[in-house]
Amino acid sequence: MHRSRSRADDDVRMRGFAKRHTVAQALAWLDMQVHTLAAEAAPLRNAAGRVLAASAASEVDVPGFDRATMDGYAVAAASTEGATPYTPLPLTVVGESMPGREFQGAVSLGEAVRIMTGAPMPEGADAVLPAEFAGIESDPRRITALAAVSPEKNLGKRGEDIARGTVLLDAGRVLRPQDLGVLSSIGVSKVEVVRRPRVRLAITGNELLPAGTPPHGARIADANGPMLEALIDRDGGVADFPGLIPDDREAILAALQSEADVVVVSGGSSVGIEDLAPMLVAQHGELAVHGIAMRPSSPTGLGRMGDCLVFLLPGNPVSSLCAYDFFAGRAIRALGGRGKQWPYRSVRGRLSRKLSSPIGRLDYARVKIADGSVDPLAVGGASVLSSTTRADGFMIVPDDSEGFPAGAEVEVWLYDAHA
Amino acid sequence: MHRSRSRADDDVRMRGFAKRHTVAQALAWLDMQVHTLAAEAAPLRNAAGRVLAASAASEVDVPGFDRATMDGYAVAAASTEGATPYTPLPLTVVGESMPGREFQGAVSLGEAVRIMTGAPMPEGADAVLPAEFAGIESDPRRITALAAVSPEKNLGKRGEDIARGTVLLDAGRVLRPQDLGVLSSIGVSKVEVVRRPRVRLAITGNELLPAGTPPHGARIADANGPMLEALIDRDGGVADFPGLIPDDREAILAALQSEADVVVVSGGSSVGIEDLAPMLVAQHGELAVHGIAMRPSSPTGLGRMGDCLVFLLPGNPVSSLCAYDFFAGRAIRALGGRGKQWPYRSVRGRLSRKLSSPIGRLDYARVKIADGSVDPLAVGGASVLSSTTRADGFMIVPDDSEGFPAGAEVEVWLYDAHA
Repeated sequence: MHRSRSRADDDVRMRGFAKRHTVAQALAWLDMQVHTLAAEAAPLRNAAGRVLAASAASEVDVPGFDRATMDGYAVAAASTEGATPYTPLPLTVVGESMPGREFQGAVSLGEAVRIMTGAPMPEGADAVLPAEFAGIESDPRRITALAAVSPEKNLGKRGEDIARGTVLLDAGRVLRPQDLGVLSSIGVSKVEVVRRPRVRLAITGNELLPAGTPPHGARIADANGPMLEALIDRDGGVADFPGLIPDDREAILAALQSEADVVVVSGGSSVGIEDLAPMLVAQHGELAVHGIAMRPSSPTGLGRMGDCLVFLLPGNPVSSLCAYDFFAGRAIRALGGRGKQWPYRSVRGRLSRKLSSPIGRLDYARVKIADGSVDPLAVGGASVLSSTTRADGFMIVPDDSEGFPAGAEVEVWLYDAHA
Repeated sequence: MHRSRSRADDDVRMRGFAKRHTVAQALAWLDMQVHTLAAEAAPLRNAAGRVLAASAASEVDVPGFDRATMDGYAVAAASTEGATPYTPLPLTVVGESMPGREFQGAVSLGEAVRIMTGAPMPEGADAVLPAEFAGIESDPRRITALAAVSPEKNLGKRGEDIARGTVLLDAGRVLRPQDLGVLSSIGVSKVEVVRRPRVRLAITGNELLPAGTPPHGARIADANGPMLEALIDRDGGVADFPGLIPDDREAILAALQSEADVVVVSGGSSVGIEDLAPMLVAQHGELAVHGIAMRPSSPTGLGRMGDCLVFLLPGNPVSSLCAYDFFAGRAIRALGGRGKQWPYRSVRGRLSRKLSSPIGRLDYARVKIADGSVDPLAVGGASVLSSTTRADGFMIVPDDSEGFPAGAEVEVWLYDAHA
């Protein structure tokens, strides 16, 4: 379809962007667009890492009964008053209380109920005499107390873990494994969590072969599809990636008009004659940002198609990674109720050599880090994806900076969660 | 079955462990048992976060051809020698090269091929004249060079991303999203990764109701099952959790004899009369460690049933979490080819108050942390799981320490990956 435009138009378009937005301007627009998605019910067993949509309060006491915290004998504490190894006090064993099999009856003065850790305290008992302070008699129905226990000793009170009405977890919480345990213990089997954003992944390019195909001739295998799918999953989105899309107006428009919360388009994001996606978004939706003062990822576009956020990422894989992390990932995390900040750990270190960058452009520099020394990789272009596998992480030179001298302390974002 | 033992035996057992192992002894035994599991092939698209079983080298150059890194005109650099805006040099446009649609032919001196970023360089061309340095003529088959370009300018050489034979990723690598991109680009569609350990989760206790059931009477809902399932998943294991197991010798033995790489038993791990699992492991396998000098989790057991590692975790949920993290999680990570270290980020801070602990016992203390101040939670027993949801993380008092004074700098392990 681009052939219907005049060659002069094309040449104008090839000259570059009329005006580049700053990264701050692009983020300001983006942050205005995102809102947390609605809640959905998720089974408790699949809820780790999900974001709680509403605070969780308990309608029950946990435990719902007083319970032993040691193995021994449930007694009225008064029955043991004055007991020592030299003045043992006799007790009659009237039964036992096991976890899940409580003693049916009451304990009177001078009586004891054999009890296991976690088992309910019988009526009339207000302390547990630990097994090691119980003397054994020849009559199995009798023991002696060899020590005194005070009231409420060695027992946990009803509601000691969770008192009815307590707010346990606040909305927005990313659920920990132990949160599932706590929710389970108050009788929650389904959790109200923020819906995961649906992300349509549209990988375009006539030169592309499906991921993992051996490259041949002038065709290369798609690197961005599997990378972006994994990034979307990391950020809590659900990627919909049905396959490669040719550089064809109708095919790209169909992907842009999907039912997703977010469309991520890879490739054809610049102002060249085959860059269809920006024109389509401008025609059928809103192309709010196109061209950003950063390197790599300068040919990045942000926009909307109706309620759907659209990200136009450059096809060069390093640009794609960088633009995803700056813009698309941030939106996916925010839609899913997560923090906007990068899901990378940062460390500080000292630059091994000078790193220059022009004022007015933000730079994303891949670095190695060892023993606190930060070494920027000497890499070519945005197409060298292997630079991001050789690197330990990246650092940012802000657009108001000319760079850093050797020895400057800088912040490095680590690609690996645990190094 | 425990009723067949004598009451005197039971009382001995109730008195506690004959001898406790130190945490270091338990870990030393454990680390001798674990080896990395064998490899399996995983589809590239599901391989993020998996552990590479063998190093990955490339059998191809990426790209497999020289390509343009700017939009413009592929030329022999010599054709532009001496060109300036005041001395434009004429060039004849003989075709175009697009990504995936290369120019069929060669470029001679004085000729140009319109080219897009990423497209293959035609034969005879050794530089790209950027579009902004090309003057437009009335004849669409003609342009002028307004600047000179030197050889190899604005192009990426064959193999610039990945040269054939390069080892890209080492064995043991936890695959990043961009690693999938790189593997895809060298034609890898299935990756050899370390098999995920199969972990049979055996949650025992007659007092338990299935997870998420409202508690009633003396029965409580299983908190450990969903928590341990999520922890096993976090550590790269595949949990097999078919449901609760009664305190019954045959049922527990059947779980211990499963086909898994690891069995994690929760509950009944102590020396009480209903603690069947330790006896069964001792009878049918090897109970190498039983009773560890730590708090909580002292009634923890480590052993083997044939080739299968067995972890006996206390039923108290905080003990269960702590013992899982110290022992079972470590083994699951190691079997799966991951690091033995905790998958928690640590930060340093200053204790807000004194924290005491007896010499000879390691303590796991839940803490809140704010503005660098570390505040140990005043919590009761190991049964208060909500303490681990209120806490930001935990700190360790080693067994050779009496604790720390107020103001001491300590290391805190954060429960949340990103705070």
